[in-house]
Amino acid sequence: MSEIVVGIIGAGRIGKLHLNNMKHMSNVRIKAVSDVFADQMGDLGVERMTKDYQEIIQDPEIQVIFICSPTDTHTTIIKEAARAGKHIFCEKPISFSDEETLEAYEVVKEAGVKFQIGFNRRFDRNFSKVRSIVEAKQIGDLHVLKITSRDPEPPPLEYVLRSGGLFADMSIHDFDMARFITNSEVIEVFAQGGALVNPKIAEVGDIDTAIIHLKFANGALGVIDNSRQAVYGYDQRLEAFGSEGSANVKNEAASRIEMFAKDGIKEDNPYHFFLERYNDAYIQEVSDFMTAIEQDKEVTCGFVDGIMAQRIAIAAKKSIDTGMPVQVEQLNSLVLE
Amino acid sequence: MSEIVVGIIGAGRIGKLHLNNMKHMSNVRIKAVSDVFADQMGDLGVERMTKDYQEIIQDPEIQVIFICSPTDTHTTIIKEAARAGKHIFCEKPISFSDEETLEAYEVVKEAGVKFQIGFNRRFDRNFSKVRSIVEAKQIGDLHVLKITSRDPEPPPLEYVLRSGGLFADMSIHDFDMARFITNSEVIEVFAQGGALVNPKIAEVGDIDTAIIHLKFANGALGVIDNSRQAVYGYDQRLEAFGSEGSANVKNEAASRIEMFAKDGIKEDNPYHFFLERYNDAYIQEVSDFMTAIEQDKEVTCGFVDGIMAQRIAIAAKKSIDTGMPVQVEQLNSLVLE
Amino acid sequence: MSEIVVGIIGAGRIGKLHLNNMKHMSNVRIKAVSDVFADQMGDLGVERMTKDYQEIIQDPEIQVIFICSPTDTHTTIIKEAARAGKHIFCEKPISFSDEETLEAYEVVKEAGVKFQIGFNRRFDRNFSKVRSIVEAKQIGDLHVLKITSRDPEPPPLEYVLRSGGLFADMSIHDFDMARFITNSEVIEVFAQGGALVNPKIAEVGDIDTAIIHLKFANGALGVIDNSRQAVYGYDQRLEAFGSEGSANVKNEAASRIEMFAKDGIKEDNPYHFFLERYNDAYIQEVSDFMTAIEQDKEVTCGFVDGIMAQRIAIAAKKSIDTGMPVQVEQLNSLVLE
Amino acid sequence: MSEIVVGIIGAGRIGKLHLNNMKHMSNVRIKAVSDVFADQMGDLGVERMTKDYQEIIQDPEIQVIFICSPTDTHTTIIKEAARAGKHIFCEKPISFSDEETLEAYEVVKEAGVKFQIGFNRRFDRNFSKVRSIVEAKQIGDLHVLKITSRDPEPPPLEYVLRSGGLFADMSIHDFDMARFITNSEVIEVFAQGGALVNPKIAEVGDIDTAIIHLKFANGALGVIDNSRQAVYGYDQRLEAFGSEGSANVKNEAASRIEMFAKDGIKEDNPYHFFLERYNDAYIQEVSDFMTAIEQDKEVTCGFVDGIMAQRIAIAAKKSIDTGMPVQVEQLNSLVLE
Repeated sequence: MSEIVVGIIGAGRIGKLHLNNMKHMSNVRIKAVSDVFADQMGDLGVERMTKDYQEIIQDPEIQVIFICSPTDTHTTIIKEAARAGKHIFCEKPISFSDEETLEAYEVVKEAGVKFQIGFNRRFDRNFSKVRSIVEAKQIGDLHVLKITSRDPEPPPLEYVLRSGGLFADMSIHDFDMARFITNSEVIEVFAQGGALVNPKIAEVGDIDTAIIHLKFANGALGVIDNSRQAVYGYDQRLEAFGSEGSANVKNEAASRIEMFAKDGIKEDNPYHFFLERYNDAYIQEVSDFMTAIEQDKEVTCGFVDGIMAQRIAIAAKKSIDTGMPVQVEQLNSLVLE
Repeated sequence: MSEIVVGIIGAGRIGKLHLNNMKHMSNVRIKAVSDVFADQMGDLGVERMTKDYQEIIQDPEIQVIFICSPTDTHTTIIKEAARAGKHIFCEKPISFSDEETLEAYEVVKEAGVKFQIGFNRRFDRNFSKVRSIVEAKQIGDLHVLKITSRDPEPPPLEYVLRSGGLFADMSIHDFDMARFITNSEVIEVFAQGGALVNPKIAEVGDIDTAIIHLKFANGALGVIDNSRQAVYGYDQRLEAFGSEGSANVKNEAASRIEMFAKDGIKEDNPYHFFLERYNDAYIQEVSDFMTAIEQDKEVTCGFVDGIMAQRIAIAAKKSIDTGMPVQVEQLNSLVLE
Repeated sequence: MSEIVVGIIGAGRIGKLHLNNMKHMSNVRIKAVSDVFADQMGDLGVERMTKDYQEIIQDPEIQVIFICSPTDTHTTIIKEAARAGKHIFCEKPISFSDEETLEAYEVVKEAGVKFQIGFNRRFDRNFSKVRSIVEAKQIGDLHVLKITSRDPEPPPLEYVLRSGGLFADMSIHDFDMARFITNSEVIEVFAQGGALVNPKIAEVGDIDTAIIHLKFANGALGVIDNSRQAVYGYDQRLEAFGSEGSANVKNEAASRIEMFAKDGIKEDNPYHFFLERYNDAYIQEVSDFMTAIEQDKEVTCGFVDGIMAQRIAIAAKKSIDTGMPVQVEQLNSLVLE
Repeated sequence: MSEIVVGIIGAGRIGKLHLNNMKHMSNVRIKAVSDVFADQMGDLGVERMTKDYQEIIQDPEIQVIFICSPTDTHTTIIKEAARAGKHIFCEKPISFSDEETLEAYEVVKEAGVKFQIGFNRRFDRNFSKVRSIVEAKQIGDLHVLKITSRDPEPPPLEYVLRSGGLFADMSIHDFDMARFITNSEVIEVFAQGGALVNPKIAEVGDIDTAIIHLKFANGALGVIDNSRQAVYGYDQRLEAFGSEGSANVKNEAASRIEMFAKDGIKEDNPYHFFLERYNDAYIQEVSDFMTAIEQDKEVTCGFVDGIMAQRIAIAAKKSIDTGMPVQVEQLNSLVLE
């Protein structure tokens, strides 16, 4: 089995994460990493560092490109990489604009390269298993999907300003999860929320707490509740309820220790940091992508998944702004279930 | 301490429940029970059985009347009992009509008698404690309230037909719970649902599965999910999430036994039957009512609570019918928090 | 169904408990209560209070006697009551002397009256269910039984002095539980312990912490761990492990609330007070006894159960004193399984 | 930081495990692996495979030797490796003979090389944390330590025959755990057991179920229960109970999913396979060993730990054979706490 040659564009937090995970993969060779601050980063332990991502695009030996640069650079790089015949792993969201996303989609389709979007939670041991449970009808027909997704603490206001808002930045993972678990499209969204954690977030036009109502094409109902601040940690739970029962995902914690003391029985909080919580999932998503390339298989989450999660985010934002339920625009090519 | 003399109107399931519970209360004397089928009921172990509830209304010795007859008789009996100077315990809902309810409310206020509505869940050891936790700000400011309330199996279609619909019949308990825990009024409702369990329920114009979005006067958000059928039992859970943490009520079960076997670790399901699940709460609600009478104190859930839960049910129904969020009509006398 | 007429001898904590529980039983009439301090007790709400327990023994109307007086009076009263033809409910332990116990046993057998010993834990919803699970071979053949039994806090030293020691006073419940769950006799005991909680307990010749190894006639192994002080509450757990799995009893607590906060996920401690923890079991044991009388059935725990638990306690004490395993003396009349 | 050069002697299941784990460690270079069946093993992806372990002992470049060969070869190889100046990681048990173990110990001490024994469970996230909890007196003074350790299924009879018996083969991990958590020596053992799972194990002179009573030098009490067969998986739990509370380690499972169905609420069983259960611990133990070498620090479990666990196993065997409690021989050099 020959090595897959990889280039990484963008070496921020998530770029470095993928870099380190791939270092341990015996079938992957990381040939080059580009970053606009490449000269200030010290030794990342890779063959070649560059400030110019074009070096990666144009390197004929590189087969796969990881796009971990800021969101507003994504579609340009996607198109260049696809035209250069590279397989692409792109972090979410694809872009802030539906038009740009669709344009990039066309290029990728035409190039016939693999494209995976970074919805890491699909590769979590619990969520992926619930997907199988639902698919196998172990809970009968799915009636209600409930997702709880809360960050441990709000990001800085400057981040909020450039984030695209709660739905595009944070809930987008949950929108994808909803589609993943139900295997059905979201057709309507109703969202309500507020800046309950930090009123300054309202001043910059965003919210930090939301409840989002989902209606699925297959008749199921869904609800997501988001908060930017759960003081007890990164809260990631899910309940899939159906005609024959229910599958619930509880949080993961740093230990399985139960302390009995005067003031009660205590267990460890959920992991605080998303990199810790989804550590295994991040490894699995890349490993799956490599397998898809080696065996020329379908990826687990592709371009359409990126498009649709983004569209649900857009609809949710419109719902908050109007106070009304909003239909989610579907892709023509998709047959609704 | 002298005995409180009680008469019960209606000896169906709930009437008999209160009868049996009060038999064990040393400060209560049940003088008479009326029921239209009194002559076919055998010996209920009470002093006097009658088919004519007027005997109870007009008995000068009787101080307290329990109204456990069908909903459409409630307001008439309430008014008669109040005018006769009796304290009243009335099962929910007060009526199917907001006008009739308000009319009865005026009579009760004028008569100055105690009036308690049968929202038994307020007296559950868990829910009442969460109310205190929220009130004491142990979870900081309440941001999100989530209620899961599912019946083990759908009622017969004939029952559904006369029930007033899912919201008036079943969700009304959750509407009251929402007001109880938040200590705030619901100002807007958005509901979606379907007949996912049994399509025949749709044919009679009702639904069996719903997700109901609530907006509270104090800025908090809420969501209720209801189903007529949870095959694993009567599912009664709640999560109150706030700025300093969260309080979750888990289900009660018939044992604390954990079985380890080849096919997994298994625990008992939640109680199947609501009378079992809320057995202690039913006793507590009456016991509290008697204390309120003896010590001339405020009841824990009064007429306004009955009115407001009913109005939320009406708004929810309107939301389902229109597909739009609906404002809940408030009582003029209520100052919104 | 006519009423069962009851007299209670001894109105201390446990006597009052049974009194109050029986007040709510419609098939029981408590005719008299005796206590040496009867004149200082105020109104207990019973027909007759007396300082002289002979009044109860000799009352021809009284059918059942509850012996709730100090342990050193038990066998005398048992013999008198049995000879007077009364059914007997006796608190544990029967006595501090095997000889006196056997003597009383002979009298009871001869009189042919019902005799129940106050091993209340057999009537707990969890432990009684595990007994059925084991009996039905739901865990296959029982291999290992583990009992954890810890008091919330040590009794006063004066109590310890007169208690008969940890094994006779506290572990005796666990010895009975071991026999109850396994349905087999304990044939050998090895015990080790110390005054780890309070060294003063060693000064009065007792221990407060123990691990007791049990060998059963049916080949199973057992272990009990006792402590006089679990700061988190009254810890009452059990594990029955067999060839097909395991049944574990977890603690009961005052709520089913889970709190998520900065410093961890917290649940309520086990009940602190044994009267709270076994409230329902105390009611059930008397109710069962009454049924045994009414229907002339076998009681759930009889004289032999009292004898054998006591003998295991004696063997455990000898094991601690000698540092060696000790055989438990069996009753001739018992066929070992 | 230069690489640490490693040779592995013995490429059975555990040898391969360490091999694969070390492949992912960037500071480790595996230079050679020896195994008597080296020529039948195919490509293990290492620089050099050999049938002759002397090649490894004599390679001047190799700094660290992993001894993963059968137990009866351990002490010979330890002595040779130590004399050659290699650091040693040796799988448990060191040997079946206390004399041979001590002889090897002397050689290792004289050579001044690092020696780590393969008690992998010390590196488990839960058990290592409980050690810290106990050390920090978070549960006050430790009074009672309880360890449950059960294999999912009994090994083949041929394995049992050569295993050294339950205590030397299986319980030895628990003996080490007991010393690790309490940080105190075991001074007395009382064991009872039987072949309850499979009577044929008795025919070959061994047992498959045991309860082992431990007395610690520091006054604490302990109990271990072992079984060769827990049908629900590899059961690895622990409870450390003290004057201020208790720390309990629950099992680890393959998911955090809770299924609600008609027949109960179900969770995944504990991991079935020890390699899965302790996957992270195996990595951590080697990583810790490498750090000890690089930074010239004390190892987490050294030769004395191997000796003492073995001696407790010997005492336990003697206890089973005699039916009596047995003192554990201490090392002169150890000051008992």
